[in-house]
Parts: sequence; structure tokens; C-alpha cells
Amino acid sequence: MGDANRKAVVLLSGGLDSATVAAVARAQGFAIHALSFAYGQRHEVELAAAKRVADAIGVENHLVQNIDLRIYGGSALTDDVDVPVGRDESAMSAEIPVTYVPARNTIFLSHALGYAEVIEAFDLFIGANAVDYSGYPDCRPAFVEQFERLANVATAAAVEGRGTFRVHAPLMAMTKAEIIREGVRLGVDYSLTHSCYAPTADGLACGGCDSCVLRRNGFAAAGVADPTRYADGAA
Amino acid sequence: MGDANRKAVVLLSGGLDSATVAAVARAQGFAIHALSFAYGQRHEVELAAAKRVADAIGVENHLVQNIDLRIYGGSALTDDVDVPVGRDESAMSAEIPVTYVPARNTIFLSHALGYAEVIEAFDLFIGANAVDYSGYPDCRPAFVEQFERLANVATAAAVEGRGTFRVHAPLMAMTKAEIIREGVRLGVDYSLTHSCYAPTADGLACGGCDSCVLRRNGFAAAGVADPTRYADGAA
Repeated sequence: MGDANRKAVVLLSGGLDSATVAAVARAQGFAIHALSFAYGQRHEVELAAAKRVADAIGVENHLVQNIDLRIYGGSALTDDVDVPVGRDESAMSAEIPVTYVPARNTIFLSHALGYAEVIEAFDLFIGANAVDYSGYPDCRPAFVEQFERLANVATAAAVEGRGTFRVHAPLMAMTKAEIIREGVRLGVDYSLTHSCYAPTADGLACGGCDSCVLRRNGFAAAGVADPTRYADGAA
Repeated sequence: MGDANRKAVVLLSGGLDSATVAAVARAQGFAIHALSFAYGQRHEVELAAAKRVADAIGVENHLVQNIDLRIYGGSALTDDVDVPVGRDESAMSAEIPVTYVPARNTIFLSHALGYAEVIEAFDLFIGANAVDYSGYPDCRPAFVEQFERLANVATAAAVEGRGTFRVHAPLMAMTKAEIIREGVRLGVDYSLTHSCYAPTADGLACGGCDSCVLRRNGFAAAGVADPTRYADGAA
């Protein structure tokens, strides 16, 4: 477990997973410094959710970094590509999804590392998950382990011996239902979070994209009432 | 050597080192996709230099990513901290310099990786140098090697077998004089480049910061006329 005097940088997207990760870090006694990104994604409504989650959990600080990943092109989350809707879970894991953003978690963790080094935090938390996002190469244990190694050669704080960086991915091996049950146990208010890849203009979840399907199925499997407001009116 | 049909992403700061790296990549036959950063540094005049260098070398594309590293704090290049002036080279290598920006090369390479994956480039070039910048942990061979390992687990392009990422740091073991001689051999016009950490309001090099001292001494040691316009009038 953590140390009440230790700081952690938590990547906070405003989604279900990262809200749970923040709760796990808090439960381990870390003072939370949350980091979110405005990266040109279509679902900027996520940033509003990130702020709600940060406020609810009581973070020390919450920074938003602006980086426009659209200049590189190449993803449904940053380009004007249609995200798939209406797929069941078995169809999602067959290949790397169109919603994959090249090197996204590498970019996000590298920013988290810069922030952590400045504030002398040595613990980074990320909601990477190899079960529901098995198609994303940067959501696997091998990725997290390699980034941790990198952090410990890349920084003055590590090289000068002030600490050893750890990258925590507490959700890595959990199903969505297990994540939700753990979050509920830790008091996460999932009505504050946002998962949808293709929200309506007024911020409602579409209900049909991969992320909505995983979320809905997760609440059902967990036996927890889904607080999400879906555009199609179903719960 | 490279392959005329292969693309490379080259990190281009507009400084002497990265201009030389771009020339090395071009000489190896790569089509160059240059990437620069506006990161809240005081020396934004570097970006104008990066554009001049990109134009002179004939790149395929030149992107500028805006990321404000000032939100993390912690460095002379991003904060209002005075950079040291008037130090000789022996004083520079005793410790990690105040001009160190936490995790900067990790952040820069992670963006380069995202760009590279989108355009299907597998070669990244960086002007990291362990001789003149021996105090920077992210300018060492161990850092470059570890980032290369990370790139090959972090990306769909690598995991799906479309290629293997290589991180090239051709200046790693060269002195500044050796870099300048190699650049001159490859036709680099160093009058287009900018190195100074503390330029005057009209963009002249101060002549006294660590970067100016290394540059001046490098030209002298290389036996090459220094084309830099210094604020103190000396060459």
C-alpha cells in the first residue's frame, strides 16, 4: 500500500476506468495530482467529466494539457472517421480497433512523467486494461513494464537516486464488471463519468459505440444500476 | 544506410545539432518528416530557425506541435529562472544543469512515435548527445535504447509486424567540433540555426549561456568560421 505523504500523478480521462483508478490511488493513501489531455478528440465532453471526477475525489491538483494529436492524423478519435456502433464484445477483440490512437498512452505517460518529476512524485497511475482493450498494444502489461523501465533511465530524479518510478495499472487484469464493483466499493460516483466515443451534441452517451456497449454490459454483469444517460433512453 | 523510399521523423529544434541530424538522415536517403515543438520555452526564436532549416533541407513535411510544458513548471527553459552565463565547459558537466527540462526527450520522442506510426515511418532521429550534454539523463545511449524497446511494444505498427522502430542518435558520441565538421561536409548552413538559451528581443544570441559557449568553442575547435550573430558582437 501507499504512503500518505506520497504524491501520485493519475491520468484522468473522465471515463469509468480512470475514475476507478483515481479511487484506487486515493485508497492507497496517495495525494492525487490528476492530469487530463485536450487532444483534439471528438469527445471533449470527457474533460468536463474529468473535472467533475477530480472535484468529487478531492485531488491536490488537476492539470489539463493541450496537445493536438489531429496534426498527426490517423484515428477515429481525432479524425472525422465514423466509430463503429452496434457491435457485440466478441467483434471488438478480433483486431486493433479503429479507435486506436497511435502511441497515445506513450504520449500520455511521458507527459505524466514530466509532471511527476517536477513535483517529485514517483508513482504514475493509468487505467490501462488488457481485457476489454486487448486490441490496444499500449494497454498491455509489456507496455507498462517497458515504460516503467524507460522512466527510470530518462529522468534526473531516478538517475540521481531520489526515487524509483512505478507505473501502476491496477485495472490491467480486471473485467469491466470487476472494475465497476471495485469502484462502487471505493465510493466512485459513476454518474459523473463519461465513456461514449460519439456523444450527442448535448453530451448524452450514444449507447451503441464499443465504449458504450462495454460500459452497459459491465454494469449489467456487475449487477449495479447503470447511472448513464443514454441518447436512446435505455439504461 | 537508409532506403530512398523510407520515411524518417526527425526532431528538429532549429539548433545546430538537430540541423546536423536532419542532414545525416537526408544523406542516408530518408524522406524527412520534421517535427518541432512550441513548448512555452523562452527561445521561441528556435521555431523560426527550425522552419528555415526545414526549408533549406527540403523536407517532405514539417509539423509544429504545441505543448505547454510550463504547466508542469520546473525548468529554466520554461520558467522565469535565469540561465547561467559565462561558465566554461568544465563547469557544465559537474551536475544536471538547471536547463534540464523534466522528461523532455521522452515527451518529444513519444510525439515523434505517434507521428511516425500514422505515416508508417519506422525511423526516428534525435540530436541527443552524451558528450556536451552529459548531465542530461535523456541524452544518454541507455535512454535511447530503452525508448526504442518501448516503441516496439507500444505501437500497432510494430506489434502487427509492419516494421521495427529504430531510434537514431547519430551525434551521440561526437564532440561539438565533430558535429560541425560533419554538418559542413553535408552542406548544412549553420547561419540558419539558433542555439542560444537567452536570446535578445531581436533574436541575437547572447554569447554567454552554456549553449552559446559550446557553440562558439565548437566552431573554434572545428576550425570553421562561426556564422552566428552574437549580441556582444564577437564571432
